Amino acid sequence: MSASCDTIGIGLAGFGTVGSGVWNMLARNGGLIADRARGALRFEIRRIVVRDPGKEREVTAPAELFTTDWQSVVEDPSVDVVVELIGGTDVAYELVAAALVAGKPVVTGNKALLAERGGDLFALSREHDTPIHFEAAVAGGIPIIKALQESLVGNRVSSITGIINGTSNYILMRMTEAELDYPAALKEAKELGYAEVDETLDVNGWDAAHKAILLGTIAHGFLIDPEEVYVRGIEYVRPLDIRFAKDLGYVVKLLCIVREHGDGSIEIRTQPSFIPKSHILASVNDVFNAVAVRGDAIGDALFYGRGAGQDPTSSSVVADLVEAGRLLRQGRGSGHRGFLPYRETGTLKPIDETETAYYVRFPVTDRPGVVADIASLLAEAGIGISGTHSPVDPDQPDAEFVDMVFLLHTCPFGTLKGALKKIEALDCVTERPVVFRIETL
Amino acid sequence: MSASCDTIGIGLAGFGTVGSGVWNMLARNGGLIADRARGALRFEIRRIVVRDPGKEREVTAPAELFTTDWQSVVEDPSVDVVVELIGGTDVAYELVAAALVAGKPVVTGNKALLAERGGDLFALSREHDTPIHFEAAVAGGIPIIKALQESLVGNRVSSITGIINGTSNYILMRMTEAELDYPAALKEAKELGYAEVDETLDVNGWDAAHKAILLGTIAHGFLIDPEEVYVRGIEYVRPLDIRFAKDLGYVVKLLCIVREHGDGSIEIRTQPSFIPKSHILASVNDVFNAVAVRGDAIGDALFYGRGAGQDPTSSSVVADLVEAGRLLRQGRGSGHRGFLPYRETGTLKPIDETETAYYVRFPVTDRPGVVADIASLLAEAGIGISGTHSPVDPDQPDAEFVDMVFLLHTCPFGTLKGALKKIEALDCVTERPVVFRIETL
Repeated sequence: MSASCDTIGIGLAGFGTVGSGVWNMLARNGGLIADRARGALRFEIRRIVVRDPGKEREVTAPAELFTTDWQSVVEDPSVDVVVELIGGTDVAYELVAAALVAGKPVVTGNKALLAERGGDLFALSREHDTPIHFEAAVAGGIPIIKALQESLVGNRVSSITGIINGTSNYILMRMTEAELDYPAALKEAKELGYAEVDETLDVNGWDAAHKAILLGTIAHGFLIDPEEVYVRGIEYVRPLDIRFAKDLGYVVKLLCIVREHGDGSIEIRTQPSFIPKSHILASVNDVFNAVAVRGDAIGDALFYGRGAGQDPTSSSVVADLVEAGRLLRQGRGSGHRGFLPYRETGTLKPIDETETAYYVRFPVTDRPGVVADIASLLAEAGIGISGTHSPVDPDQPDAEFVDMVFLLHTCPFGTLKGALKKIEALDCVTERPVVFRIETL
Repeated sequence: MSASCDTIGIGLAGFGTVGSGVWNMLARNGGLIADRARGALRFEIRRIVVRDPGKEREVTAPAELFTTDWQSVVEDPSVDVVVELIGGTDVAYELVAAALVAGKPVVTGNKALLAERGGDLFALSREHDTPIHFEAAVAGGIPIIKALQESLVGNRVSSITGIINGTSNYILMRMTEAELDYPAALKEAKELGYAEVDETLDVNGWDAAHKAILLGTIAHGFLIDPEEVYVRGIEYVRPLDIRFAKDLGYVVKLLCIVREHGDGSIEIRTQPSFIPKSHILASVNDVFNAVAVRGDAIGDALFYGRGAGQDPTSSSVVADLVEAGRLLRQGRGSGHRGFLPYRETGTLKPIDETETAYYVRFPVTDRPGVVADIASLLAEAGIGISGTHSPVDPDQPDAEFVDMVFLLHTCPFGTLKGALKKIEALDCVTERPVVFRIETL
């Protein structure tokens, strides 16, 4: 294997933002990395797969490195490690699978690929004793994968709470600070390059959910079917709810929660939630990410940093390259910590059984009896009301249509849904009630 | 080597707080750890070195494991890894050195040992190709050693700013929140078990400085002589300065700073400093620790968690045991990332050349001309005044002795010291001026 030679050869699939970041970082800090390994590790990018080799690029790499044929890169004997940065779950899948079968370790930042098709890829990885490294797949530069897999290896992880989509976090922050509506905040995020041209996966919660699925699999050891995960995005968050949250001492954040219950079942969900203004996660702004972890030995820990962008993501790719290089030097059978899953199955807690407190806003026609009607149906379902918030517009004290907010005591989500169904059927309720969970964390 | 057998044998030197924590954690989560390694790693504590085997202990371990003879533990063929938790720099040194010479990897949480005598131990470690793992030596459960050595391996680390002594942080917090004086806050910390019976190393800054030395060596690759490091503790912090800091929008924290300058020199210092109330480090309270790292690729990142205590520290020891176990399985020559230093020498920036803004409080006799005298001497030294703060006690507007605070623009520490020497000689200055750096971070 050429890994026993002086230099480790890299095949880079994808040469966009992160790919060129990796190129730059190896050029800039390759000497430092070699020094830190006491001269034992040097890297060279030997092949680059792109769709259009003729395209003008930010970074100039020798023309002979470029190819459109990913298979030739996997087969190239001078390539020891394959870095997958093309995204998507089709070609990327074939490429990663082929590399693993060829015994070439893979470094990838592709959360969708691993969350959707990780089962097959992790199986190939074990079968061929060839690791997949994916620090760059979750939270950009923050080393949360390594922290969970290695530093917390001796801990039962009772909860993981993450702000792990920078785009959503930026949009919610701007809606809060500058009181923008969602379209205006999204537009701003796009202008700043914080949102993709197609922002769908960022704002519909799935980018964050894919990452949460990976964190859940690492912490609890079993594959999690994305179809069983409850995911809501930020597209329907309205300025009114952001404002009411503020009035009530909360901040709205797109949160991913992975929590282990006493019965061993795992709660996993992604949605915009209310968190107390005073909680440390409420201070995570801009495109920063943060992951709070609670373990039975470590207690509460928090990992914070840039969750996306060229350099932070490259930082994680390069760290994985160094690890891949070290393991290659040690030869096969080195028992890489990344072999997942480590148990066959686990149980997800059905979303209807998960419990939090809630904020519910009812758009209603303001006629006598409306409060009583809603409150009775809540009481009938056994749901307690901990507070209300229905400020009157001083200019229109007799407005006909109003928003009535109830803060509800902790109850199962299914119980709430049942009650809301009945309440929606009341003639005074003009639109679907808007629900946010209130997280105690 | 018995490491090729099923179970990895541990020799535990020290069975106090952390030692019994490790025992408990392996008992509680040993199965989980084995699962996560897909059955490949099991651990057993086979010898325990203590001073008094007859002592009543929190944890019951079989009597036959105990010995007072550390040498017998290193020599025991059933011991594969030696965990050093006895503290100090004498016996601990001999024990660690003997283990390395015997080719037995060491796990230690002993920051003083590595900061004071790491040069010889790291050399032995390389010579015998046997790693020293020391995650538990810095910031308890927070995996900052691994983050720097592995996750940030591709980054130039331009600064590390840490709150890494929980005792000091607790005391300063109580002085701020409850307006206690130092002796009262220290007493409270002792009652809560947050301060040792002998609190010296915690409050004089050296515990934090030892940790900073280790972080500096990891980030910059060369051994740092503790004698060349500027260290001040919190013993002389007075309620008055805490209060004035609050008035001015700052919080006082015991900060460790490791910073790389353009000329390649490294600034390393530990002292109570003013930081802006709004900075994330200002929110690190109780006995929590946090380390903010700035790298050229990752940007700003923060690692936060419990910096001490039985379980968090055990969490790091156990993580290191798992890593030691993995490397043992792979055999020698595995190029552990922990071989330090990775360069021969480096340059420390002399403390007199380090620059910040400053808060200086002058206890003075209030006679006409005192402000002019002090201000002239500052001007003579070329030091600008950015603000003043000398609130008058409303009950004693004509008090004879007062405290006059000047906020000074950024200048070299040496320049400030020169000016203060002349100012101290003024007859109106009744006590030594009190200096805090104002950190911009």
